[in-house]
Amino acid sequence: MRILYHLPLSPYARKVRLVLAEKRLPFELRVEKTWERRPDYLAMNPAGTVPTLTEDNGLVIPHSNTICEYLDEAYPDICLVGRTLGERVEIRSVAAWFDERFAQEVSRNLLYEKVMKQASRRGAPDAARLREGYAALRTHLAYIGWLAETRKWLAGANLSLADFAAAAHLSALDFIGDIDWSIAPAAKEWYARMKSRPSFRALLADRVSGIAPPPHYADLDF
Amino acid sequence: MRILYHLPLSPYARKVRLVLAEKRLPFELRVEKTWERRPDYLAMNPAGTVPTLTEDNGLVIPHSNTICEYLDEAYPDICLVGRTLGERVEIRSVAAWFDERFAQEVSRNLLYEKVMKQASRRGAPDAARLREGYAALRTHLAYIGWLAETRKWLAGANLSLADFAAAAHLSALDFIGDIDWSIAPAAKEWYARMKSRPSFRALLADRVSGIAPPPHYADLDF
Ligand SMILES: N[C@@H](CCC(=O)N[C@@H](CS)C(=O)NCC(=O)O)C(=O)O
Ligand SMILES: N[C@@H](CCC(=O)N[C@@H](CS)C(=O)NCC(=O)O)C(=O)O
Repeated sequence: MRILYHLPLSPYARKVRLVLAEKRLPFELRVEKTWERRPDYLAMNPAGTVPTLTEDNGLVIPHSNTICEYLDEAYPDICLVGRTLGERVEIRSVAAWFDERFAQEVSRNLLYEKVMKQASRRGAPDAARLREGYAALRTHLAYIGWLAETRKWLAGANLSLADFAAAAHLSALDFIGDIDWSIAPAAKEWYARMKSRPSFRALLADRVSGIAPPPHYADLDF
Repeated sequence: MRILYHLPLSPYARKVRLVLAEKRLPFELRVEKTWERRPDYLAMNPAGTVPTLTEDNGLVIPHSNTICEYLDEAYPDICLVGRTLGERVEIRSVAAWFDERFAQEVSRNLLYEKVMKQASRRGAPDAARLREGYAALRTHLAYIGWLAETRKWLAGANLSLADFAAAAHLSALDFIGDIDWSIAPAAKEWYARMKSRPSFRALLADRVSGIAPPPHYADLDF
């Protein structure tokens, strides 16, 4: 069985879960407590991060981007990285924007401070970082809204990896109650479309011990 | 004319310069002082980072990975991301290792502290970060040596993007005199092979105002 090593609130693992579900590829989830730095896991992924995917044929694939590029090449029926060169550039650029800028300015400051630090017993959240994260989140929500209003999906006319990268980060933040959707109607409209896709169901059913998501988290009509 | 916006010591821009030269694609270099946050540049690359590549047909491609994937798709004669699914996974994983882990543990601590901070007038290097960077560099050089001894090139039997990603980071550090090659003979042997490729010549001829590279920097027989 295909196995995805993950943490429930890792945006990178969530992106891969969405892509796997969108491509209707069955897989089993295994939680990897990255902070334990398990030698068997480090042998598969020397960076020690989640996600890592293993295929039945023995292929071990660390890193969410490497996994997503692999899945689009190995299972091309449902294409998520675009068809023309121009589409592929735009999709990869927008996806990288979320996986690097959004991650660094928002997810790093909120998710890491509130969840990862706690889970790995590295102390209490840093208030300055939380403030920075919330401020950046406002700007990013406005940018997502602007993208969603000027094109059908975030990277163009088709649903793509860029939408899943963005939705993965937002869904993790929404789980911890950090998104005030009332300030970003255009981003909310796009996120509602994402949330209602069958591929999103498993994410909305996630349970994490010690954290209760807000009531709107799993509500398609939030 | 194809234009690459860059900074001479940016490892990400160096990787793209190597890939362009390896594929024998002519291009013009333009220095982009990222800290000036020029609006015309931000319109091309909202993250404001270098590199960004522009093609004659108007295509604007921000982000070194997006550029390298694009170049391998648009100009496939000399293939640098591998042919089989397994090769492609290994090449992308090793390249990501350098562009993320090596970057964070070494380049961020040495290049950023010693060069970028100075250039953008953000203060003096932080001694603790330099110490951390030098310690991590030793470990990474040993890892590169191990890779180079167990396979022909860093990600397998063929020269690939992984070699250029690694060589780009090392060449920038070598320019500022931060690499003691005597401690890492296997890494040195691999780097000597990289350095003697014609695609490397332009990097070895780089001049940066205010920084004189050590004599061995451009020496193929160092
Ligand atoms: N660029 C990597 C990043 C993965 C990553 O940073 N994962 C985090 C969780 S969201 C992690 O595993 N952190 C634990 C660690 O860095 O040790 C990817 O896309 O897979
Ligand atoms: N992941 C990006 C990173 C590029 C990057 O961080 N470039 C640095 C120079 S090495 C930069 O432009 N820094 C300026 C800034 O962050 O404003 C890529 O691969 O292109």
